[in-house]
Amino acid sequence: MLRKLVVVGVGLIGGSFARALRRAGAVGTIVGVDRNEVALARALELGIVDRAAREAADEVADADLVLLAAPVAQTPAILASIATRLGPDTVVTDAGSTKGDVVAAARTALGAQIARFVPAHPIAGREVHGPDAALDDLYDGRHVIVTPLAGHDADAVERVRAAWRSAGARVLEMDVARHDSVLASVSHLPHVLAYALVAQIVDGVDAELKLALAGAGFRDFTRIAASSPEMWRDIVLANREALLGELDRYAAVVADLRARIADGDGAGIEAVFDKASRTRLAWQAARDAATSR
Amino acid sequence: MLRKLVVVGVGLIGGSFARALRRAGAVGTIVGVDRNEVALARALELGIVDRAAREAADEVADADLVLLAAPVAQTPAILASIATRLGPDTVVTDAGSTKGDVVAAARTALGAQIARFVPAHPIAGREVHGPDAALDDLYDGRHVIVTPLAGHDADAVERVRAAWRSAGARVLEMDVARHDSVLASVSHLPHVLAYALVAQIVDGVDAELKLALAGAGFRDFTRIAASSPEMWRDIVLANREALLGELDRYAAVVADLRARIADGDGAGIEAVFDKASRTRLAWQAARDAATSR
Repeated sequence: MLRKLVVVGVGLIGGSFARALRRAGAVGTIVGVDRNEVALARALELGIVDRAAREAADEVADADLVLLAAPVAQTPAILASIATRLGPDTVVTDAGSTKGDVVAAARTALGAQIARFVPAHPIAGREVHGPDAALDDLYDGRHVIVTPLAGHDADAVERVRAAWRSAGARVLEMDVARHDSVLASVSHLPHVLAYALVAQIVDGVDAELKLALAGAGFRDFTRIAASSPEMWRDIVLANREALLGELDRYAAVVADLRARIADGDGAGIEAVFDKASRTRLAWQAARDAATSR
Repeated sequence: MLRKLVVVGVGLIGGSFARALRRAGAVGTIVGVDRNEVALARALELGIVDRAAREAADEVADADLVLLAAPVAQTPAILASIATRLGPDTVVTDAGSTKGDVVAAARTALGAQIARFVPAHPIAGREVHGPDAALDDLYDGRHVIVTPLAGHDADAVERVRAAWRSAGARVLEMDVARHDSVLASVSHLPHVLAYALVAQIVDGVDAELKLALAGAGFRDFTRIAASSPEMWRDIVLANREALLGELDRYAAVVADLRARIADGDGAGIEAVFDKASRTRLAWQAARDAATSR
């Protein structure tokens, strides 16, 4: 049971966390902080938070948990603003989709208090944003990855894990580097590749004709190329190192396939396609089984 | 009005063509040919064809139009079997998704009669196959690309165009090379890239973890990696030259993006993402507007 929770950023992610803990009866007072005054007033009106505050620094001393759920570009400044005001029992966590960059910022801002900073990443989202998009069941059955740092306070880690379990999530633990390389592989790399295909088409010959004749395969493959350019610029830069590693390994697989195509190696091509196809079919079957439970 | 149509391959594509022409009252007799005797009997039972024949060669002399809609690997053998039996007024067309390879096979098999061979590619499909999947409206509003050859018979080309218009399709005309490079860009390349991503993941570290944490972005990007490995092996080999060109141009775009990421060039990354995102959003909007008409 958290007596006091401070949520910095009361949009989809932070608001849903607040709602889910409230639903579970796992929290006493929830204080919302947001630079966006309209969003903050709306979160109060919707009952997502009990109280609104202007500065996180004024609220963290007696908080059991502080969740940073503002846009990740604001994280270093927020950490710097609260660093000297944290109480001895305050635990800080975040919800960013990359971890290496957040940890570096936290080390700089928090110094020795880094032991009570527990990085986390809930893998959940919606197309819509803001307090009105927040749901008390957004995290039900979804994965949350917690990436404890060397020298962490065990109680702090358990407090974060327990909060996410109360919110309905399945908690996984791994180190920061592994988190960042896994997400680079299944999320950040596909975004880069989809953006690149659309960019290549629009800058190349016959762009209009190609787009006019593009069908369902193109539609699915490039759906994520409609994502926010600013957000994905920040993500690929924040996770630069892991992403470049995955990109280079991917380029090697493509180069190998290219050679097989150029050589007319039908058996070799089919072996790669067949392995991928079987993997993808099994993945979908497992996912369908999980969601129909 | 076609007095006699011969459809070689009475599955989804050939069966739907027959049904659509019947619906339009644009055909007299339809003769079906298929190596698969069960499919052929079923097409007769369903009324898709008026008569079933064992050998295309026995039916082509007095046919106005012969549509080749069997698996493309059979095209050279079918063309060879009918070459000496074509009547002076018989026009032959096909429905394959690559054109350069079909044209090469047709030149070999047909010699001077190539003037009455009109390559075509209907861009339409369903997840299901066989005569039972055939629909009289499969081609309504869909594009059919006709790729007339140098020295073609103008009447032959017009007969094929008219037949597809009767079937409800929108007919486009372009040369073989352009068709193959457009399709390589918007269809064949994305398939190769999606297969490669799944293959990279399954052969790399943390495959299980990555697949467990893969979300909606991965799902959409890799949906086409569940496609038939045999069919796509044949397509990438049939369209090898155009596909390798598109693949190399794509690799250059990715390499450029890689350099921007490595350099931390946020503005450069955002410019590429933004152009792609705006293009993709406009594409979807145009598509939604077209389907809601």
